[in-house]
Amino acid sequence: MKKIILTAIAVSASAMSFTAAAQFAKPEDAVKYRKAAFTVTAAHFGRMGAMAQGKAPFDAKIAAENAEIVANMAKLPWHAFGEGTETAETKAKPEVWKQNAKFKELSEKFQAESVKLVAATKTGKEDAFKAAFTATAGTCKSCHDDFKNK
Amino acid sequence: MKKIILTAIAVSASAMSFTAAAQFAKPEDAVKYRKAAFTVTAAHFGRMGAMAQGKAPFDAKIAAENAEIVANMAKLPWHAFGEGTETAETKAKPEVWKQNAKFKELSEKFQAESVKLVAATKTGKEDAFKAAFTATAGTCKSCHDDFKNK
Repeated sequence: MKKIILTAIAVSASAMSFTAAAQFAKPEDAVKYRKAAFTVTAAHFGRMGAMAQGKAPFDAKIAAENAEIVANMAKLPWHAFGEGTETAETKAKPEVWKQNAKFKELSEKFQAESVKLVAATKTGKEDAFKAAFTATAGTCKSCHDDFKNK
Repeated sequence: MKKIILTAIAVSASAMSFTAAAQFAKPEDAVKYRKAAFTVTAAHFGRMGAMAQGKAPFDAKIAAENAEIVANMAKLPWHAFGEGTETAETKAKPEVWKQNAKFKELSEKFQAESVKLVAATKTGKEDAFKAAFTATAGTCKSCHDDFKNK
């Protein structure tokens, strides 16, 4: 009985966890998944970027729609960086696995800033949006600098 | 002034609309985006599928987490099927554009069923989950049959 409970806890805890490589049949599937998640994230982040940089007119509603998608997407890729996925065709540097605690910390900063970005868009204030966008973009860059090959 | 208001309405209405090809710089970007959105969707739908088919033990919490991701993802790909994206490398059949109203209708059925699937997972009842999963999977199949090449 104890074993069953422990197994149940383990399954439950691993559902969205960092090293749940078992959720993918093959390492290539995990890599394809995480690339896909970043592709969707980047598209919506880019639409906000156009507004933040003054290339598109600021529209609070559009900013909020995109920020919400980014905040949802920001939760997803990390469980696809499990052990065994570092040897597949990937732009992820070996540091993702060698310095996994730091990678996890940066991924959590991005998630936290993306939630703040949603809140900023909902104020309807362009300045608040731009500041939160810049902060979120900074978390992308700091992680890419250390953990992603160009 | 009237023109400004109309423009504002048009921009706002097009944000998540079906033919907003202008949101992508190139048709290839739209195709890459929609493929990515479906990749993420399929991964999470597949995890529920394993439970629905008895290949994995039913866990209402894991089912709910995956169902919520699918319901969020289900909103995304459609605006990337804009005019001009039918000539890129795609598995989408020409019928997506020739019978666009039907395509839109089926995409909306998938979205509606995925929302019901979230509700079903939250009941915690395996039977309700399986029934809603089957209904949602049916909307995938009916759209793929008519609008996606193998």
